[in-house]
Amino acid sequence: MLTFYFAPGSCALASLIALGESGLAYEHRRLNLANGDQRQPDYLAINPKGRVPALVTDRGVLTENIAIMAYIAQIVPAAKLAPLDDPFEFAQMQSFNSYIVSTVHVNHSHKGRGYRWTDDAAAIETMKAKVPQTMTESFALIEDKMLKGPWVMGEQYTVADGYLFTMEKWLPGDGVDIKQFPKVSAHYERMLERPTVQKALAVEQG
Amino acid sequence: MLTFYFAPGSCALASLIALGESGLAYEHRRLNLANGDQRQPDYLAINPKGRVPALVTDRGVLTENIAIMAYIAQIVPAAKLAPLDDPFEFAQMQSFNSYIVSTVHVNHSHKGRGYRWTDDAAAIETMKAKVPQTMTESFALIEDKMLKGPWVMGEQYTVADGYLFTMEKWLPGDGVDIKQFPKVSAHYERMLERPTVQKALAVEQG
Ligand SMILES: N[C@@H](CCC(=O)N[C@@H](CS)C(=O)NCC(=O)O)C(=O)O
Ligand SMILES: N[C@@H](CCC(=O)N[C@@H](CS)C(=O)NCC(=O)O)C(=O)O
Repeated sequence: MLTFYFAPGSCALASLIALGESGLAYEHRRLNLANGDQRQPDYLAINPKGRVPALVTDRGVLTENIAIMAYIAQIVPAAKLAPLDDPFEFAQMQSFNSYIVSTVHVNHSHKGRGYRWTDDAAAIETMKAKVPQTMTESFALIEDKMLKGPWVMGEQYTVADGYLFTMEKWLPGDGVDIKQFPKVSAHYERMLERPTVQKALAVEQG
Repeated sequence: MLTFYFAPGSCALASLIALGESGLAYEHRRLNLANGDQRQPDYLAINPKGRVPALVTDRGVLTENIAIMAYIAQIVPAAKLAPLDDPFEFAQMQSFNSYIVSTVHVNHSHKGRGYRWTDDAAAIETMKAKVPQTMTESFALIEDKMLKGPWVMGEQYTVADGYLFTMEKWLPGDGVDIKQFPKVSAHYERMLERPTVQKALAVEQG
């Protein structure tokens, strides 16, 4: 049995969507990040990083969205959630996911988690102020150079789509109007129509 | 033919080591980041993100270390650079790499690239000041919970080792004494003894 630890509104939505797409059976446990559930000893025993998501498997715990999503794609090949038979295309998908985790998500985190990188309250405010700009720049690159359309990788839906959707969902809160990016907007709308995405959003809200 | 774009002292060392370990033939092109080579139109045509590394293949360009390294491991299975036959172990390796790219490398970047996330000169100074702390915390987690030893994944060397080595090499410049982490220190010394690592360091310096 798989047990998935997540929190509403968090990046864990990307892996939650992948789980739904895979058809795998899983239990879920909802953490409240504002309450600090992720820093309680029982959760740190599962993920010592104190972050969501975490996927508990019979073999042990997996953390980090890009690892969890690729794992789900690999153990359920019939779901076709990644280009498993083509190392080049698989690498393109992982490159997209790596840009999200290392740049887009990190830009976003400077809004609410600036204390990770400075102890200065005024500095944190200056970081918050720049988030609309950095998120706009990241999404301009995604719009112009990365999103093949209709899905991230082209005709085939992959786990990268759930990851991109998770970032798209953050844009209004980050002060960015998604409408300025026609391909990204169309991707977001297309995702909202997917039953697995609607289900994941319902699971998230509980 | 493969062409690898990198810069001395950068995170591209991780993929450079993986290339050397694989035995693949490749040409290399050295960029000077201080001169802004990465922002010249000819390089932006290769990698519109304006970053190294980039690997140009017959199929197109790959960017992002974790995608390039997994690609190299997959196309040269005989080099045994990743646990390719076990999705769970592969995911553990990618989880380690994702922690590096999303957390360790990002912590480090707040020393020299703070302007990415704030326009305020004083704020940038406060970010720099916290880098020794954030890098120490990341490496404490690696030491205590992540590095199985002797290699990242245990008995089998993988591409994750070249990535960890690249971060270890940054520690003195980040104001962190590697000696406080016995397993990490031993890993660094073990890497320095590897002929492929010595060769990569020589290629890097030109
Ligand atoms: N690189 C990790 C990032 C995980 C992460 O930062 N999760 C956030 C939610 S989006 C979290 O748990 N934050 C809690 C905290 O910072 O205390 C991944 O992609 O899985
Ligand atoms: N997430 C990317 C990060 C690439 C990156 O940030 N590279 C740095 C060197 S360590 C760079 O090219 N910096 C140039 C710049 O910021 O102008 C990866 O892992 O490949």
